[in-house]
Amino acid sequence: MKPYAQLTPAERAEEYARLQGEFESLKARGLSLNMARGKPGKRQLDLVSDIFALMQKPEDYVSDGIDVRNYGEMAGLPAARRLFADILGCRPEQVFVGGNSSLQLMYDTICKAYTHGLLHSPRPWREEETIKWLCPAPGYDRHFKVTESFGFQLVVIPMTDDGPDMDAVEEAVKDPAVKGIWCVPKYSNPEGVIYSRETIRRLAALRPAAPDFTVMWDNAYCVHEFEGDYVPFPDILSLCAEAGNPDMVFEFASTSKITLPGAGVSCFACSEANMAHMEQLLIPQVISFDKVNQQRHVLYLKDKAHTLELMKKHAAVMGPKFRSVVDTLDKEIAPLDIASWRRPKGGYFVSFNAMPGTAKRTLALCKEAGVTMTSAGATFPYGKDPRDSNIRIAPSLPPVEELEQAMAVFCVCVKLAALEKLGA
Amino acid sequence: MKPYAQLTPAERAEEYARLQGEFESLKARGLSLNMARGKPGKRQLDLVSDIFALMQKPEDYVSDGIDVRNYGEMAGLPAARRLFADILGCRPEQVFVGGNSSLQLMYDTICKAYTHGLLHSPRPWREEETIKWLCPAPGYDRHFKVTESFGFQLVVIPMTDDGPDMDAVEEAVKDPAVKGIWCVPKYSNPEGVIYSRETIRRLAALRPAAPDFTVMWDNAYCVHEFEGDYVPFPDILSLCAEAGNPDMVFEFASTSKITLPGAGVSCFACSEANMAHMEQLLIPQVISFDKVNQQRHVLYLKDKAHTLELMKKHAAVMGPKFRSVVDTLDKEIAPLDIASWRRPKGGYFVSFNAMPGTAKRTLALCKEAGVTMTSAGATFPYGKDPRDSNIRIAPSLPPVEELEQAMAVFCVCVKLAALEKLGA
Repeated sequence: MKPYAQLTPAERAEEYARLQGEFESLKARGLSLNMARGKPGKRQLDLVSDIFALMQKPEDYVSDGIDVRNYGEMAGLPAARRLFADILGCRPEQVFVGGNSSLQLMYDTICKAYTHGLLHSPRPWREEETIKWLCPAPGYDRHFKVTESFGFQLVVIPMTDDGPDMDAVEEAVKDPAVKGIWCVPKYSNPEGVIYSRETIRRLAALRPAAPDFTVMWDNAYCVHEFEGDYVPFPDILSLCAEAGNPDMVFEFASTSKITLPGAGVSCFACSEANMAHMEQLLIPQVISFDKVNQQRHVLYLKDKAHTLELMKKHAAVMGPKFRSVVDTLDKEIAPLDIASWRRPKGGYFVSFNAMPGTAKRTLALCKEAGVTMTSAGATFPYGKDPRDSNIRIAPSLPPVEELEQAMAVFCVCVKLAALEKLGA
Repeated sequence: MKPYAQLTPAERAEEYARLQGEFESLKARGLSLNMARGKPGKRQLDLVSDIFALMQKPEDYVSDGIDVRNYGEMAGLPAARRLFADILGCRPEQVFVGGNSSLQLMYDTICKAYTHGLLHSPRPWREEETIKWLCPAPGYDRHFKVTESFGFQLVVIPMTDDGPDMDAVEEAVKDPAVKGIWCVPKYSNPEGVIYSRETIRRLAALRPAAPDFTVMWDNAYCVHEFEGDYVPFPDILSLCAEAGNPDMVFEFASTSKITLPGAGVSCFACSEANMAHMEQLLIPQVISFDKVNQQRHVLYLKDKAHTLELMKKHAAVMGPKFRSVVDTLDKEIAPLDIASWRRPKGGYFVSFNAMPGTAKRTLALCKEAGVTMTSAGATFPYGKDPRDSNIRIAPSLPPVEELEQAMAVFCVCVKLAALEKLGA
C-alpha cells in the first residue's frame, strides 16, 4: 500500500469502502476490549502473588526492633526507606514511605503547598492570585488533573525526544506565578522517553523566579524496562543539591507496577529540610502508614538487585505485548504515512500520533467496535489536544490474543479516520 | 487514710515525707513505662496475626468478580462496604472504604471542605473569614489538631455523663461561623462515655445556622467493649435523615483496634448525596485504596457477629488491664478525696481528673520516675486544660505487671502533687 496522501481520490474511496467492510465484520464480533489504562495484566499479578506467603513467622513482624503491626514510624519503616533509597539512588533519610499510592502522595504535596505552603513559600498557594504549572505534553492525565483541581493554570510544555523542551521551561520559570512542573523522567507517560542527561542537568540547574518552584519528579517507571537491560538513571536529589537547588524537587515512586497495583507501597524522596517541613505538616494527618505492607515488600523485594530480577519477569510478560503493538503499527500504518509513534523500551504506554484532526474520530470508531482506549486529548492539560492527534495506547492489561484483536480494530479505525480527513 | 483535706498540716507533712521516700525508691528502679497512647499490646497483635494466613488461594483474590490485586473500585470493595455497613448499621452504598487510617479520612474530609467545600458549602472554607469548631472536652487530641491545623477556632463544649452538653451545642450552632463538631459517640476518648439516646437525638436534630455544619462522628470504638456484652448503638445516618439533616454527618470507623493498628482498614459513611460529592473530589487524588487488605479483612472478620466474637478475645486481654487501673485508683486514691474518674466498659482510656492545678505537676513527677503519660492538657483544644486537672490514662500497651508498676508510680505522683497543692 502506498502512502494515503499519494492515492488518487478513486483509490482512496476504494480503500475506504474496503476498510468499512473490515470494520463492520470486526464490529460484528461484539468485542469488549480495553486498552485505556496502564493496568498490569493477570499474568503479572499472578507472578507476584507469592508475596502473600510472607509474614507467616513471628520474626517477620519485627524490623529493626520495631513491631510492624503496631502504630508508629510516620515516615515509614527504616528498612523500607533503605529499600527505596537503594532503588532511587538517594539516602534513606531522604525517603518517606507512605501507603499504597504515589498519586496520593503527589496530591498531598500539592495540597499542602496550597493549604499551608512549602518550605520556601512566602505564603500558602491558596493566597496567590494566580498559580501556573508547567505540563510537558503529551503527559499523564492524572498529574494534570491534580493541579487542575486546585485551580492552577496549566501551561503546555512541548515534549521532545530528550524530555521537556528546556528552552521553553527556562523561559517559563522567569514568571514568579509559575510554581512547578510535572516530570516523568524515565519512560515518560505516554511518550516512553528517557530524559537526557542534559535535560536533567538543565532542570536541576533552573533559576526559577518563584522561591518555592517545585519539580514533581514522578519516577513511576524507574526500574520498568521491558526491553533490554536496566538503564541507570541519575539521582535528581543530588543533582539539584549540587546545582544549589536542594529543596526544589520532590521525587515519587511506588511498587504498583513492581508488585501489586493499588496494593503496593509508595514513597516520596526530598531534601532533609523538605522532609522536616513535610513531617511537621503531616503530624496532624497521619499516625503511620501500613508498615505491615511495607515489611512485606522489604522481605519480598529485598534490594535493588533483587527488584531488577523481578522486573525481568515482568518484562517477559510485557515485552511481547509491546512488540505486538509496535510491530502491528509498523506493518499496518507505517507504509501509509499517516501517523507516527515511538518504540519504547520501558514504561506502560505507546504514544501514537494520528493524522492531526483524527484522534477523536479514531477513538469514536474504536468504541463503536468495542475497543475502549484512553480518551483523545487526555494526554494534554484540560483534556484538550490542540492538534487532536495524540492517542495513548496501553497494552499491558489484555492478554496478547486480545491485544491483537484490539490492535486490528485500532488500525482499521486509524485508517478510516485518516481517509475521511483526506476526503475519501 | 482520711481525705487529704481533713489532715492537719503536720499529718500532711508526714504523709508527704513518706510518699517522697516511696517516690525515691520507685525512681531508683529505673523504670521506663509508657501509658501515653491507645496502642494495643503485643498479646492483642498476636491474637489477630493469623490474618496473614489468608490470601493464599487464587480464589481469595477475587471478590464479587473483582480481582482485588489490580487498580479500581475507588470507593472500596463491595464486600468491604457491606462488612462496615453491617458493623455500623447503615447501608453499603453509604460506606466508602479507604486505607489504613480513619484519621487520614477525617483529615481529608476537613481538608476538602477547606480547599473545595462540602456539598452545601456556599464557598470553600478557606474563603470564610472565621471558622469555629466545637470540641467536646476532654476529647481526642488528634481531632483537635486536625481542625487547629487549618486555623479553625476551637470552642470547648463541656462533656457530661451523657455526651457533649447539648444546651451548649444548640446555643453554639446559632453562630453561622460554627461549621462542625467532633464526636466520639461510643466510649468517648478519653471519658469512655456512651452518648445517651437523647443526646444523639438532639445532635441529629440540630438546626445549625451554617448550611454545611458537619458532625464528625468518629465511631472509633463501635464494637470495643472490654466489660460486659456488646452495647447496641443507633445508626446516626438514619437519625440525621429522619430529622431532616441527611447530609449533616460523616461517620468514621476502622479496624485499627479490631485487627492491626496502622495496618487495618478504615471507612467513612455518609449520605449518598455526600458520597457523590466526595467521590467527585476524590477522583483527582485516588485511583483506589488497598483492596488486598480490604479483602483480607473481609475474609477475616466475615460479618458483625463474627467481629463481635473477636472483640471478646480482645476484651479478655483488655479487661484485666482496665480493672487493674481502676481498682488501684479505687484503693489508693478514692479514700483521699483528691480526684475523680470513670469506670469505662469499653474504649481505650480512663479519664482521670486530678485535683485542679495538679495535672502537669503529677505528670512531671511521673516522667521523673520513668512513666510516660499523655501530656497534661492534651485532652483539651490547644493542649490547654483550664483547670489543669484531666489526665488520660492509656492502659492498653503495657503488660499487666508493667501496668501495675506504672500505676503505683502514678498514684504516688497524684498524691504528692495534691499534697503540694494543699500545702504540705
